[in-house]
Amino acid sequence: MDNLMQPFSLRVSEILDHAARYHPWRKIISRNVEGPIVETNWSSVRIKAKKLSKALQKLDIKKSDRIGVMAWNTARHLELWYGIPGSGAINHTLNPRLFSKQLTYIINHAEDKILMVDLDLIKILEEILPTCKTVTHAIILADKANMPRSNLPNLICYEELVANEDSDFEWVTGHETEACGICYTSGTTGNPKGVVYTHRSNVLHALTSASPDMINLSSTDRIMPVVPLFHANGWSIGYTAPLVGASMVMPGKEMTPEALYEMLEKGVTVTAAVPTIWLLLLNYLKEKKLKLSSLKRVIIGGSSCPKAVIESFQKDFGVKVLHAWGMTEMSPLGTICSFKPEVLELSEEEKISVQETTGHPPFTVELKLTDDNGNKLKNDGKTQGKLWARGAAVVQKYLKFDEKVVDNDGWFDTGDVATIDENGYMSITDRSKDIIKSGGEWISSIELENAAVGHPKIVEAAAIGVFHPKWDERPILVVVCEKGTRVKEKEITDFMSDYVAKWQIPDDIIFVEEIPHTATGKISKIGLRKILENQNYQHPDIQQ
Amino acid sequence: MDNLMQPFSLRVSEILDHAARYHPWRKIISRNVEGPIVETNWSSVRIKAKKLSKALQKLDIKKSDRIGVMAWNTARHLELWYGIPGSGAINHTLNPRLFSKQLTYIINHAEDKILMVDLDLIKILEEILPTCKTVTHAIILADKANMPRSNLPNLICYEELVANEDSDFEWVTGHETEACGICYTSGTTGNPKGVVYTHRSNVLHALTSASPDMINLSSTDRIMPVVPLFHANGWSIGYTAPLVGASMVMPGKEMTPEALYEMLEKGVTVTAAVPTIWLLLLNYLKEKKLKLSSLKRVIIGGSSCPKAVIESFQKDFGVKVLHAWGMTEMSPLGTICSFKPEVLELSEEEKISVQETTGHPPFTVELKLTDDNGNKLKNDGKTQGKLWARGAAVVQKYLKFDEKVVDNDGWFDTGDVATIDENGYMSITDRSKDIIKSGGEWISSIELENAAVGHPKIVEAAAIGVFHPKWDERPILVVVCEKGTRVKEKEITDFMSDYVAKWQIPDDIIFVEEIPHTATGKISKIGLRKILENQNYQHPDIQQ
Repeated sequence: MDNLMQPFSLRVSEILDHAARYHPWRKIISRNVEGPIVETNWSSVRIKAKKLSKALQKLDIKKSDRIGVMAWNTARHLELWYGIPGSGAINHTLNPRLFSKQLTYIINHAEDKILMVDLDLIKILEEILPTCKTVTHAIILADKANMPRSNLPNLICYEELVANEDSDFEWVTGHETEACGICYTSGTTGNPKGVVYTHRSNVLHALTSASPDMINLSSTDRIMPVVPLFHANGWSIGYTAPLVGASMVMPGKEMTPEALYEMLEKGVTVTAAVPTIWLLLLNYLKEKKLKLSSLKRVIIGGSSCPKAVIESFQKDFGVKVLHAWGMTEMSPLGTICSFKPEVLELSEEEKISVQETTGHPPFTVELKLTDDNGNKLKNDGKTQGKLWARGAAVVQKYLKFDEKVVDNDGWFDTGDVATIDENGYMSITDRSKDIIKSGGEWISSIELENAAVGHPKIVEAAAIGVFHPKWDERPILVVVCEKGTRVKEKEITDFMSDYVAKWQIPDDIIFVEEIPHTATGKISKIGLRKILENQNYQHPDIQQ
Repeated sequence: MDNLMQPFSLRVSEILDHAARYHPWRKIISRNVEGPIVETNWSSVRIKAKKLSKALQKLDIKKSDRIGVMAWNTARHLELWYGIPGSGAINHTLNPRLFSKQLTYIINHAEDKILMVDLDLIKILEEILPTCKTVTHAIILADKANMPRSNLPNLICYEELVANEDSDFEWVTGHETEACGICYTSGTTGNPKGVVYTHRSNVLHALTSASPDMINLSSTDRIMPVVPLFHANGWSIGYTAPLVGASMVMPGKEMTPEALYEMLEKGVTVTAAVPTIWLLLLNYLKEKKLKLSSLKRVIIGGSSCPKAVIESFQKDFGVKVLHAWGMTEMSPLGTICSFKPEVLELSEEEKISVQETTGHPPFTVELKLTDDNGNKLKNDGKTQGKLWARGAAVVQKYLKFDEKVVDNDGWFDTGDVATIDENGYMSITDRSKDIIKSGGEWISSIELENAAVGHPKIVEAAAIGVFHPKWDERPILVVVCEKGTRVKEKEITDFMSDYVAKWQIPDDIIFVEEIPHTATGKISKIGLRKILENQNYQHPDIQQ
């Protein structure tokens, strides 16, 4: 009675096969790392990927072997995206912006057998390769003419390697829950942890993220991922685009507004990146009085998107913003802010407010809020709670971790604090470890910081909770003022009281010259706590 | 290394849970069989479905038991759509238009334990129930006040049954390849055969058919399936709509243009049915000078859609036509005619020609053409071949058949002959058993018939191939002329030569008063062959 339908394995090779079969000539325009802008298509990408799979097997790659890839967004990278899993191996994306020690750690931890590296990253390769214990071959993503000079022996030229093979190769098959790719989380504490995407999770994720209420990607779109393929599964765009037969533009390593604008004007209809990229681009466009002639939608995620960016894209350039939230651990899509009918009924101004949330989840993703004791909280758009996620492409275990990172009901703790409204629209309000718990109520450190930096003389502000005998925790604020200026404490608290409730106003303000930052430029609350500890800082109520 | 993502079972209960969680208040407007138009939503459908699951278990329904459902498209039917599989049982849709003997055959073949029947179909139930060996209970889909009078004992009232339960029920779980629904093919030869959809095939099918290049269904749509839920998996709309959180209109049993127009005007944005329905509606709209105020897209399938219908919807009413092809055996979606970039570049007239094809497949569906020896033929838009299908929601075995109905490479023979063009757009040209094979070339009987009935005095025409000593087969044409008129053979062949190649022109024309038809109103080629056999008909070249 069961299982009378045909078997169909949800493996990523099916995605590329579909693209090459039904959308073979769809253009992929790519700025190569060597410099020139080149064109290819899904049919050619598939042929190159098959050649690569064949070559990798000759380099003794066996099923489930890991291959580390440190590369920018190019058409060549897409060949790897399919050639590596097609050979049975696992595509381990490496972020070249990590410290060498971190790179060495994750390459050794994943036991990568081969490294494939863009030619401009040769210096990093030279630095780390001697410390990578399991790596047997290094492949440079270049043609023979552009192979970099290096003191490393036996570097393999990618284009030569691939040119020596034919494409007569059957993709390696296997169960759909086999590993397909690995991405390590940067991890603010402890060592980076490896998230292992399966073939199945990648295919289901691509299917759901393409849907009309999510990215709404079709074969008539041309999508440019500015977000690097090594960030959080490349936001899955390397899978979603060929699944729907979309055309692509790959911007290479040039991230200047000029370079991105040049690529956007090659008929791009959808693009995706973090807010910083778009702030720079919007300024550039306004300064140069330029228009976006083909762009229709921009996906903004990675961190909260300022209202001004949303408004400028939509009002000044006629480009619809899709504010999104995700995590490396979620493949990465958690939510996208498209308009449900309830939102379509609102005024334009109210719609913009909705767009400041990160939206609602696709099919297969489920979110919930709880208090510290795991009691479910209501979705009223106000109540803050710990944010938990469940889904078909959400992590269950990290690589080489025995324990699951989900609770008994299968929920993954995102580490975020959020609100969810009646219509399912979610807003991150803080990280769990940064939220300030005052007398049973939760105060968002981010909200306090945003309120404070609105003051014209405040350059940076960090809110943290300190122990209080009566309220458990109370907020205090660490502030950096503009050089050579002074602001009175009361002026700041008065200013803030326009934006936050009275009982949330920080009890103390500490003026400093500098606030410590993490490697990725965020405020280091851990560093800040250490400084305060060293000074034996205590809440004023205790000091008195 | 493998399987580190969370488990997520592709079961249809996940679809309804998602709809109730993120689109709870989306309206479902339904014309009840009792008469009134009522409103419900996904949250309420889920509650009722859970109550039904609970009640079914009390009626001794165990996992994989079959429940036969004979019902029109109502919100209540949607409750069954989830309540039955939610209880672990299998939803066996029954077509009330079948002959009683056929109904009895398929109910006994599937071994249905319970029958659930709309109140207006009580006469059919009374007729067949005594012959249904495995049925232990019959449930009438009505409230107490509307229970029909019947001599059948122990009829259960659906609304009473459900009202007696609470919704505190966990959906029955299990492997995603477990059976979820059954639909029997009508079968022109032999007994009907049962196609068994799995939970997985239904979920994957709903996901792919919602995608932007297919139905493009979103939470802002309101979809009305005119095609009955008992036809070919209800074109999957009962799954696709809640998966994306769409609103629905369920038209009930009233299929008159007046009744359908009334329901379309309740904010419907997408609708779906066979061409006949739309021909009647378009005539009605023109006659009454009516407009379609909310409808944006119409999905037309089930049989080839006349160009005039496509043009009238698009030009007269501003409604985009999505010509589609599918089969009960394919869950049913095979292809939809949306525009790829290659088509967008064409003139408006050329686009209409493309829309006469049934379009291209979604991800997970693969089509190919072969000759009689299984050699793959090219996709050039001209070469006719046997059409084969592979996919995640395509049949592998029929119910209680030991042999697979796929070849060694997993291909299912659709029984159709088709062409596929360079861009993957497919056109059915004939049924395999009807195509005329003349000297190695294939002549479409349908093309000949269409060419002939263009003649103003020809009412109906049927082309069949008869044995020929030199060419294997040659076409002859059986013709019914308008009453009281006569047409010369040469006039017909001259007329046809404007539409088909010379060598395809039928060698003989036989004038008859009437052509035999099947139960569903199609020309019965089998019946026609029998008549000719009885007359010892032979090709003119043999007779001479």
